[in-house]
Parts: sequence; structure tokens; C-alpha cells
Amino acid sequence: MPEHLTPDALRAALAEAPAPDADARAAAEARNAQLTKPPGALGRLEELAIWAAGWQGTERPAIARPQVLIFAGNHGVAAQGVSAFPAEVTAQMVANFEDGGAAINQLAREAGAELTVHALDLDRPTVDFTEDPAMSDRDFAAALGAGWHAVDPEADALVAGEMGIGNTTAAAAVAAGLFGGPVEDWVGRGTGVDDAGLARKRAVVTAGLARHGAFLADPLDALRCLGGRELAAIAGAVARARVLRIPVVLDGFIATAAAAPLAGLAEGALDHALAGHVSAEAGHGRLLEKLGKEPLLDLGLRLGEGSGAAVALLVLKAALATHSGMATFAEAGVAQT
Amino acid sequence: MPEHLTPDALRAALAEAPAPDADARAAAEARNAQLTKPPGALGRLEELAIWAAGWQGTERPAIARPQVLIFAGNHGVAAQGVSAFPAEVTAQMVANFEDGGAAINQLAREAGAELTVHALDLDRPTVDFTEDPAMSDRDFAAALGAGWHAVDPEADALVAGEMGIGNTTAAAAVAAGLFGGPVEDWVGRGTGVDDAGLARKRAVVTAGLARHGAFLADPLDALRCLGGRELAAIAGAVARARVLRIPVVLDGFIATAAAAPLAGLAEGALDHALAGHVSAEAGHGRLLEKLGKEPLLDLGLRLGEGSGAAVALLVLKAALATHSGMATFAEAGVAQT
Repeated sequence: MPEHLTPDALRAALAEAPAPDADARAAAEARNAQLTKPPGALGRLEELAIWAAGWQGTERPAIARPQVLIFAGNHGVAAQGVSAFPAEVTAQMVANFEDGGAAINQLAREAGAELTVHALDLDRPTVDFTEDPAMSDRDFAAALGAGWHAVDPEADALVAGEMGIGNTTAAAAVAAGLFGGPVEDWVGRGTGVDDAGLARKRAVVTAGLARHGAFLADPLDALRCLGGRELAAIAGAVARARVLRIPVVLDGFIATAAAAPLAGLAEGALDHALAGHVSAEAGHGRLLEKLGKEPLLDLGLRLGEGSGAAVALLVLKAALATHSGMATFAEAGVAQT
Repeated sequence: MPEHLTPDALRAALAEAPAPDADARAAAEARNAQLTKPPGALGRLEELAIWAAGWQGTERPAIARPQVLIFAGNHGVAAQGVSAFPAEVTAQMVANFEDGGAAINQLAREAGAELTVHALDLDRPTVDFTEDPAMSDRDFAAALGAGWHAVDPEADALVAGEMGIGNTTAAAAVAAGLFGGPVEDWVGRGTGVDDAGLARKRAVVTAGLARHGAFLADPLDALRCLGGRELAAIAGAVARARVLRIPVVLDGFIATAAAAPLAGLAEGALDHALAGHVSAEAGHGRLLEKLGKEPLLDLGLRLGEGSGAAVALLVLKAALATHSGMATFAEAGVAQT
């Protein structure tokens, strides 16, 4: 059983997290200007390489040991008919991840990433948040700790994905709790609910916000009261990566909502996190805007599991390989402008 | 010396090119509906897999042997100051490709692609198209043939990139010749010309269109009169891939302008070609619209060399690996909606 991580310990760790390496970043910028291409011609790929240089602390960043974590949890609100799939599918998909049959298994293999699956008390769903907080303090600290301790300190990039029937409802509630605005802006069709299901999701989120309004001023309380174990674990993992200066590629709506509370805890707490893609779930683009993140890809994905982030990881890896492997004008004997 | 390919032979080959395999495509669609994910949750990745299934003629397409071709050419119009770089850079970059120091070398390695470089008579630039056709019939057939014969019939995906100082000017002229509209819509800053350089590019393209107006009704004549050897070679390679049913990932403005004439020669002549990305060169998005192509990526690239297409190839490869490697609901014992 991994150690618990209390919200206070998480806050303290983030408050002391190291800044990116300014010297390495400056060295990467200088190198970039000397590479055999017109200035700026590699667009976003150049930005990615310079960004990663700061976090990895080297002029020539690389991704040789990426890690993909999948956290799975079950949700009390699933009983209210907020998903097109029955709650049993969470455990069935965990078995599929373990057997290598899911989308993320194929994508992690493409990226050369080590994938581990963390099923978080699936037989004990979170409390229905329309009635009580989704997690007790103890459950929340256990889930944060599960994420924190799952991160491999030797990894050079991290994707934290999720699986949990009902968790777009939890994510919408967390996002609405953190950023406000009409509930309709945050609630989408998830895996594909019909109009009646969508109406139930909206009602559930509205009821949850009404029930826990008093606690929502604290971002971590919003996550505890409205989120789920897999969301809390993602928050823990992304925080740990920040402390370890490991670049993170954020996945879709749920993973982004899970990480979003960290932004309210410390300045720059998500600066190490790249928005891998913007998903087809309507609230995701809005959430990325609130976080000031420009997504790398837009492929109409809405699967979760870390799948979109794993595709983005391929692009990030290619950006670093290009920056770190190219010849300079002087090395190649190419004339500069 | 590779065999020449005449425009008539190219037309004839395209007219007889085989359709995609409808059975394989239907089988891939049926498989896609059984994979362990909500319907449509992999968005564009699903479309890519089904599209590739038709071209590769198999329910489970894969990219195990991708090919990257780079064609290089020199341009008479370069003497008019249309580039920020001197014409010598074309040959210097060819040496850089051969030494493995360019962006495309790193990206091709990431994609596991075999890269070959084809320098096309660099010491004999095309004619300045403001004065005469850029290529004689013989030069044009030689360049088309160089592209046609460079394609590996065993390749399972193709990227055809280019290098040639001055070739955004040639590409703008070809695009304007094919699709009309204000010259300003097609002429951009390329590798980074200043305002005076941009004005020169516009004047050169305007003069070229005025000089060759009578021939532009024929798409291949537009390519011969206004294009360049590397553009003609790309057209030849993309046509050969169509005949061989090899999926193509188109690169940026120049590569797309090079392939664009094929669309006017036969119905569906570019159906095997995916728009890998939309570049920062202003005319590219407009050109993709004219061709009815939705770009896969938008990363602000404007390098050429096949670089954006090679990044897109990573995404395409991942899409196929996902489709072909995932478990079905029945195989994984996961409940369906």
C-alpha cells in the first residue's frame, strides 16, 4: 500500500518545487538558432524542445524513458445513469489494459513507453457527490499518494491517463467548481450519452455544486468533494512530476480537470505540463483556455486512457530528437541568412 | 539515369489506377466498431485506419516500411532575389541530408523510414519562368520520371519532400496557375523574406502567370512552365504511389502544390494522399481547401524537406497500430453499450 499524501504535504511540496533550468533553456535557445533551418521554421517543435530543455536541465533534451500511468476508479454517481456504459466496464477495461488490448497499450508501445495500470479500490466506488463528498480525507490522501508514488523518478516524460465509468461527470463538476460558469459549458456527452443522459449529467453536476458550494474555494477540496480516486491520483502524479521536473503531457478533459486544481496551489505548478491535445468533449477546450494552455493536437479524440497524450508524446519525442540531433550551420557548412 | 515519364504516360497511368479495396475498407470499418472503445472515440485516428485499409487492401493496415524521398532542384527565379538564402544552399542542404544532419533525417529515423535524397541537376537551374517555361518537355519528363522511379514498390507509406532555394515562388506560381485568384493569396514569406523580398516574389509570380497564361489550362503545363524539377518529381512520385496504392502523406505548401496538378488529371488521383499538416506559409491552407483536404496537424511549420509529413507519419503509424492491435469487445470480455 503506497503512502498517503495529505493536501498540506502536496501544497508544501509544490511551494518548494524547483524552477526550470534557465541556463539549459538559454543554451537550447542558442543551439536552436544555429541549427540548419531558417529561424522559426520548425514552429511549435522548436518551442517544445526549448521548453523541455528547461525541465530536463539539458541543452539537448530527449525522451528515452517515457512513462504512461493509467489510474482507474469507480464513481458513486455512475448509479445515476450518467454514462452509456455500465460501471462494470471500469474493471473490465483494467483487465484489457493488463492484457495489452486497449488503445493506450498500442500507443504506449509506439512511444516506447512503460505502461502501468493502477486500479484504485474499484470495489469501493466513491460516494455519490450529490449526497456527500466523493472522498473522505483519508480516501483522498490515499489516492493522491497512489499517484505521487507511481511516478518513476527516472522517467523523462510522463503521461497520466484514466479510466472510470462516470468520470466525465466528475471532471465536469470539478471544472465547474474551480472555474464557475454555466454547468452546460462543462458537461458533455462523454463516451456518448443520449439527450436524456446529458440532462441527467447536468442535473447531477448542478446538485453536486449546490451540495458542496462552501468548500469549492479550495481547489483540492473541489477535487476531493466532486472528483474521484483516479482524478486525485493524476493530480498527485502531475505534482510529483513537477517536483522532479519531469515534463508531463496532459491528456483529455478528465486528466486536465484532475490536474487543474494544482494551478491554484502554487505559481507555475503546471508549467511543466503540455496540453497534448484538445478532445471532442466540449468542456476541454474551455478548460485549456482557463489554464492558458494551447493544445498540440486536435484529432477529435474522446477516449481518455491517456490516448491523446500518448499520440502527442510521439510529436514531443520527435521535436526533441530533431533539436538534439540536427547539425548546426557551422557543422554542416551551410550558409546562413 | 532513370527513364523519362511523359505527361501522356502519366495521364494514362492515372486513368487506369486501381480503386481502393472496398472489401478491405468495409472489413476495417466492421473491425473498428468492435474494438474496445466507445464508437468514434478515437476520432480522426479511426478515419485514418479505415482509409489506409482501403489503400493497403487489408483489414489491419500497418506501416512497417515507410519511405521518405527528398527531391532537390535549383530555380532560375532565385536570381531575382525571391529567397532569404543564396542558391548555393540547395546543394549544401543536399550534403546535409546525405550526412544525416537535417531535420528530416531525425524525423525519418523517428518514423523508422528509409530516406533517400535525389538531387536533380542542381548545376543546371530551371529557366527563369518570367522569361520562358521553367522546363523543356524533355527536362520535365526527366523530372517526372525521377520521381516515378524513386518510389519503392514495397513501401507501405510515402512522404515526398523537397529542397530548393526559390521554390515557394515556383509553388505559388503553380497554385495560382491552377486555381487562380489574387497572387497575394498564394505568395508568402517562405523561409523568411522581408517586405521587399515579398514584393519581388509577387511581381515574379505575376509576370510568370502573364507569360504562360495560354498554357495554364493544362495542369501539367502549369507545373512544367512555372514549377521546378523537385516539384515535378514529387508529382511523379505521388502518381506512382497512386498506381501502387501506397498511402501518401503530403508535406507543406510546395509539396502540395507539386501534387495538386494530379487532381485535375483523373478522378480520385489524390484520394490516396493525406494532408499531413497545414504549414505557416499562408497559401497552404488555401491550397488544401481547394483540394478538399483536412490537415492532420497544425504546428506552424514552414521548413519543407518532408518534415511536417514525417511528423504526421508518426500519427498515421500510431493510428494503424491502434486499429490493428486492439482487442475487440468479445476478445477482451468488455461489455458494449
